[in-house]
Amino acid sequence: MPRLGEVFSFGMAAPADMSALTAAISAGQIDPAAVVCIYVKTEGNGQDNDFSRDVAAMTLQEIFSRYGAAPVLIASGGCEGVLSPHYIVVQRRTGDAPGAASARALAIGHARTRLLAAEEIGTLAQAHATADAVAQAMQDAGMTAADVAFVQIKAALLTDAAIADAAKRKVAVRAVRPHASKPLTRAACAIGVAAALGELDMALLTEAAIDDASLQTDRAIVTPGNTDMRCDIIVFGQADGWAGPHRVGAAPLQDLIDLTSATGLLRRLGFTPDPQLPAAESARIDGVLFKGDPPAAEVIRGRRHVIWRDSDVQPPRHVRAAVGGMLSSLLGNTRVFCAGGAEHQGPEGGGVLAIFSREADDA
Amino acid sequence: MPRLGEVFSFGMAAPADMSALTAAISAGQIDPAAVVCIYVKTEGNGQDNDFSRDVAAMTLQEIFSRYGAAPVLIASGGCEGVLSPHYIVVQRRTGDAPGAASARALAIGHARTRLLAAEEIGTLAQAHATADAVAQAMQDAGMTAADVAFVQIKAALLTDAAIADAAKRKVAVRAVRPHASKPLTRAACAIGVAAALGELDMALLTEAAIDDASLQTDRAIVTPGNTDMRCDIIVFGQADGWAGPHRVGAAPLQDLIDLTSATGLLRRLGFTPDPQLPAAESARIDGVLFKGDPPAAEVIRGRRHVIWRDSDVQPPRHVRAAVGGMLSSLLGNTRVFCAGGAEHQGPEGGGVLAIFSREADDA
Amino acid sequence: MPRLGEVFSFGMAAPADMSALTAAISAGQIDPAAVVCIYVKTEGNGQDNDFSRDVAAMTLQEIFSRYGAAPVLIASGGCEGVLSPHYIVVQRRTGDAPGAASARALAIGHARTRLLAAEEIGTLAQAHATADAVAQAMQDAGMTAADVAFVQIKAALLTDAAIADAAKRKVAVRAVRPHASKPLTRAACAIGVAAALGELDMALLTEAAIDDASLQTDRAIVTPGNTDMRCDIIVFGQADGWAGPHRVGAAPLQDLIDLTSATGLLRRLGFTPDPQLPAAESARIDGVLFKGDPPAAEVIRGRRHVIWRDSDVQPPRHVRAAVGGMLSSLLGNTRVFCAGGAEHQGPEGGGVLAIFSREADDA
Amino acid sequence: MPRLGEVFSFGMAAPADMSALTAAISAGQIDPAAVVCIYVKTEGNGQDNDFSRDVAAMTLQEIFSRYGAAPVLIASGGCEGVLSPHYIVVQRRTGDAPGAASARALAIGHARTRLLAAEEIGTLAQAHATADAVAQAMQDAGMTAADVAFVQIKAALLTDAAIADAAKRKVAVRAVRPHASKPLTRAACAIGVAAALGELDMALLTEAAIDDASLQTDRAIVTPGNTDMRCDIIVFGQADGWAGPHRVGAAPLQDLIDLTSATGLLRRLGFTPDPQLPAAESARIDGVLFKGDPPAAEVIRGRRHVIWRDSDVQPPRHVRAAVGGMLSSLLGNTRVFCAGGAEHQGPEGGGVLAIFSREADDA
Repeated sequence: MPRLGEVFSFGMAAPADMSALTAAISAGQIDPAAVVCIYVKTEGNGQDNDFSRDVAAMTLQEIFSRYGAAPVLIASGGCEGVLSPHYIVVQRRTGDAPGAASARALAIGHARTRLLAAEEIGTLAQAHATADAVAQAMQDAGMTAADVAFVQIKAALLTDAAIADAAKRKVAVRAVRPHASKPLTRAACAIGVAAALGELDMALLTEAAIDDASLQTDRAIVTPGNTDMRCDIIVFGQADGWAGPHRVGAAPLQDLIDLTSATGLLRRLGFTPDPQLPAAESARIDGVLFKGDPPAAEVIRGRRHVIWRDSDVQPPRHVRAAVGGMLSSLLGNTRVFCAGGAEHQGPEGGGVLAIFSREADDA
Repeated sequence: MPRLGEVFSFGMAAPADMSALTAAISAGQIDPAAVVCIYVKTEGNGQDNDFSRDVAAMTLQEIFSRYGAAPVLIASGGCEGVLSPHYIVVQRRTGDAPGAASARALAIGHARTRLLAAEEIGTLAQAHATADAVAQAMQDAGMTAADVAFVQIKAALLTDAAIADAAKRKVAVRAVRPHASKPLTRAACAIGVAAALGELDMALLTEAAIDDASLQTDRAIVTPGNTDMRCDIIVFGQADGWAGPHRVGAAPLQDLIDLTSATGLLRRLGFTPDPQLPAAESARIDGVLFKGDPPAAEVIRGRRHVIWRDSDVQPPRHVRAAVGGMLSSLLGNTRVFCAGGAEHQGPEGGGVLAIFSREADDA
Repeated sequence: MPRLGEVFSFGMAAPADMSALTAAISAGQIDPAAVVCIYVKTEGNGQDNDFSRDVAAMTLQEIFSRYGAAPVLIASGGCEGVLSPHYIVVQRRTGDAPGAASARALAIGHARTRLLAAEEIGTLAQAHATADAVAQAMQDAGMTAADVAFVQIKAALLTDAAIADAAKRKVAVRAVRPHASKPLTRAACAIGVAAALGELDMALLTEAAIDDASLQTDRAIVTPGNTDMRCDIIVFGQADGWAGPHRVGAAPLQDLIDLTSATGLLRRLGFTPDPQLPAAESARIDGVLFKGDPPAAEVIRGRRHVIWRDSDVQPPRHVRAAVGGMLSSLLGNTRVFCAGGAEHQGPEGGGVLAIFSREADDA
Repeated sequence: MPRLGEVFSFGMAAPADMSALTAAISAGQIDPAAVVCIYVKTEGNGQDNDFSRDVAAMTLQEIFSRYGAAPVLIASGGCEGVLSPHYIVVQRRTGDAPGAASARALAIGHARTRLLAAEEIGTLAQAHATADAVAQAMQDAGMTAADVAFVQIKAALLTDAAIADAAKRKVAVRAVRPHASKPLTRAACAIGVAAALGELDMALLTEAAIDDASLQTDRAIVTPGNTDMRCDIIVFGQADGWAGPHRVGAAPLQDLIDLTSATGLLRRLGFTPDPQLPAAESARIDGVLFKGDPPAAEVIRGRRHVIWRDSDVQPPRHVRAAVGGMLSSLLGNTRVFCAGGAEHQGPEGGGVLAIFSREADDA
């Protein structure tokens, strides 16, 4: 009996508005126990002092705890530019998939890393633990590395408590404040994905790899947030044994204006942008994820940018607004889960784009 | 003997960096006395307390004053997202145009309004004065309304001195601080353009028209900044009596993700975006102007946006970043002169896009 | 048997950190059912998109709901400058007051306004309803107007739902977005307090009074936030029938650098600042509230200020940082509940300062 | 014949408004050739992208170049909170001092460091060069170390050009962008002052001293800005051979709410704050300088602060607003030249306060 992976996209009137989810649960469309993860894009600044994510998380936890469920929550603040606050619910069920199993249907695997020590955050030890968990997640989904479209990670970050504890133990950690551990945990996890998918050979890596901007995976999106010192690994792809209309694809963007690669990904998923997706096709997009950063060099295609020189607005906000503008206009849809912090995730100065789509009913 | 309109695009390493201009003057490519206007896109926040514009303006004035010249300066701060600080120099010469005069070649006309009283800023009196000056500028270029691609206005705004003077005269003005007069002067000028180009019938308008968001012109871009209580009117189009490879086109964008209209304008100018402009074509774009605002309703294509609810970053910054992302990725070029403050300029929640281009050498 | 009013001050490690409160409840120091109100000063930006307040409120509601209690929550974001996130718990009990009842002991009264219609927000109708409720609250505490130090109001604001409903009813409301209703509801409530305390004669007022910056009460602090279209009124003062060591005082500050008035209030409360409070006295300060705004004129004591010209940081953030710096340095304590939005509350360009203190043990 | 040091304070209506200066020059009160330095406090954000400083600098340079003069310009952006844009002109003349020379009169010395290499910025080499120049400046004024109230430095910073040149030379520099060199150059200069004044023994220092937050001078204020790879050193104090009513004093503040030390400094200068300066005394304050930073620890007097966690407003802006509030309210005057970036300048988490005052006419 085939398994079924499903993706639902909902809008929010405020960070605490989960009314569409509760309605879908009531309608039997969503089974809380079957939800693997939820992406939430809230309207704060997406920076250190953004509590809109907490409001959404508290609300979701309250809902799911009623059912004894605790899906992985991937929260990102910042709806700059045209972006629209929304959330994406991913569930997998067994036995009720419409149609026959197919190597083209969305497949989903999940695993967790072992418990990490505070001093492992941002090191090769974390990368190794990540690679191990990616392998387990692929096995969970019945996927090979070739089947994987991309790996979503909810990464452990340092907490005030963990930092204080390490100080007590007189052990060096790589960041003195939680916010500062985010780049490090993202980097280590991405290296782990690259190793697990065969993009890098872990045996050749030294600790310096964590900070080496030339290393990259084209198939990871890493979001920090776990405070229990474990990382959640979710692999998405197409694999045998899965059925239903849902699909997923991913592609690296070479820079922040790489409309060509974004369009190419849509075409590979069977869409016909010209240049914008027709409304009927736009309605078959259920989730758009982008992780990217400005180039360290202050140049995009030979022209100077000033993202690093704006003391009022932080760089990720510029990236989300600009890439959000490109992708929203391509898709005719402003629900883009766009986030900064893309260490090793796609080309330096570009990033990784992933799209969840649905086949047309008559496909 | 035909006239020649020319457009040059230059990058800036800082707001005071006009080295490319001075080099072009030295090389005889630019004749200071022939420069009609200069667009400068600097790297400040584009808001009330952005002094990057002043630095650029002081530098340009110093350069041009050496030649006894004083072109119209259209300065806009804010290079959010991927946007690149740059400036665009527009000049017109007589007698040295390559090739024959053609109804397809870039034509440029200039006029100034009469002196406005402080209490006329943001009123129909200003709209009338603007309409009169648009007519003069068209005559200056030998253009009919049908020839006009768009009208650029450098609008008078209230100064602290003018506000204080009006207070002394006990005359009511429409804004108590200079910054607050910007929407008003833009609105009045845009109504004037609409009347001059036959888009609106001035005889039917009342004072309420200035604030009526349903009224619109598709062919005006209004930038406040003149402190001498006069507006500069520059009309751009194609007209008989002009020659050379330069062209101009404009189109309204229906909303902030209207990639379709932007692509359509490029196609009408002879380009072949797919979806991005090929590099060779991108090199024939000399200036890209966009004026637009977020929709008053908190919705874009049915999805909520939160531009109006961000207390940290002002709405025009969101618009520049997002539309700049769309246009830069379409053009393969981040030199987009993107600005907010689009009262009556294009559809509400959209705006006006104008592009200066050059024919291919073998065209 | 005398009544006892008590004020407790607690720090927070994060907006959701209410551990000091739960410990005080466990220790029997605080009885959830006896808590009248809680002031919470969280670390967001204090503006429209500050969700730190929501996190604190959700956490507090969860705690109090366990006891079937629902105290009035007065949340204010923004710990600019040296300010420290903290909360102040106010409770009143009967029968367990130490010492004899005294006209000098802290007295607390509470009442609610009637249900307001959306179209009444920001009007004299709201002011009248407020005045009525102030009278009830004074009666609740056994106070006369002369006994009142100040009146704290948690004011009803317009919600998206109320605005939409009024639109459906084709009734005009004074603000099109919830955030925009805050100045209006503050203004109307403050006028109501002025009337109730005899500072203004309600019979002489017209609707214009709501927006007339020359009208003022020296004894109101109004914080918007109620979404149920009622205002909570809490009067603080000293009155017969109350006992215990707690005291309260309030004073208008004439401008944002009025250290003299702040020092005078401390002296009236029995303290000896020189110029800073000695540490032992500082420990007897349990709550410091300030509501104030920048002057509309861009001048403080003859010198220009630029609070209104900062496009990156909103005016209340400047006020909180500056007045917070003055008061924290006077008190030797950075727990200052400093907020903007002081329509009619104290002198224009100044504000109202209120201090909760405790007598020395041997006093 | 005694020398005379004079300090003038002027307000600005905008960054380019130097009308008070030009009037004082016309009136013969200020001799451009006698001006040693000018402090300018402009209204930008004081961060990397603050061009208000450039506007003021361009205007001042234009004025002084007419007289062949080029005083040291110490520009600082950021008038947060109540602070008022202003500038302070310091001049010294010979032979026209009123009254007899006195060891109590303001004395001023000036020297420049040797040319620094890009790779020396932020190193002990820069500290040594600074110490040498401090000695020269003391000699210039006829001062001993004991006479020095404080040393003002306009420090060399790395420029884009210097960074690029060093890269070409394959020499490591300590910052990859000009803005990032500011803490380094401040730190090195402050160490140099500490050595020159005998607060630290240079012979005992290693390169690690530059970054060692425990090292401190109580008598330096370092402002980066020179782009010619030299630092300007100006020593202020009281010394024999000088006359006139002007005085200067300085004191370390132990933390950002150290009202006690600020009051103590005023008292030592002969003032009688209670707690605010009486208006007549306030009028004898000609310049107030403060350099300070938030403590690295997130605590002020045992209470948490959140300055480091605000992703929207940079830490120096918080410091300026808060300390500006304290000092303005103490002085009854909002012209406070308050700036962040106080590496080694005063206690960590505090800073250095300097005040220029004038004796009463009948003193």
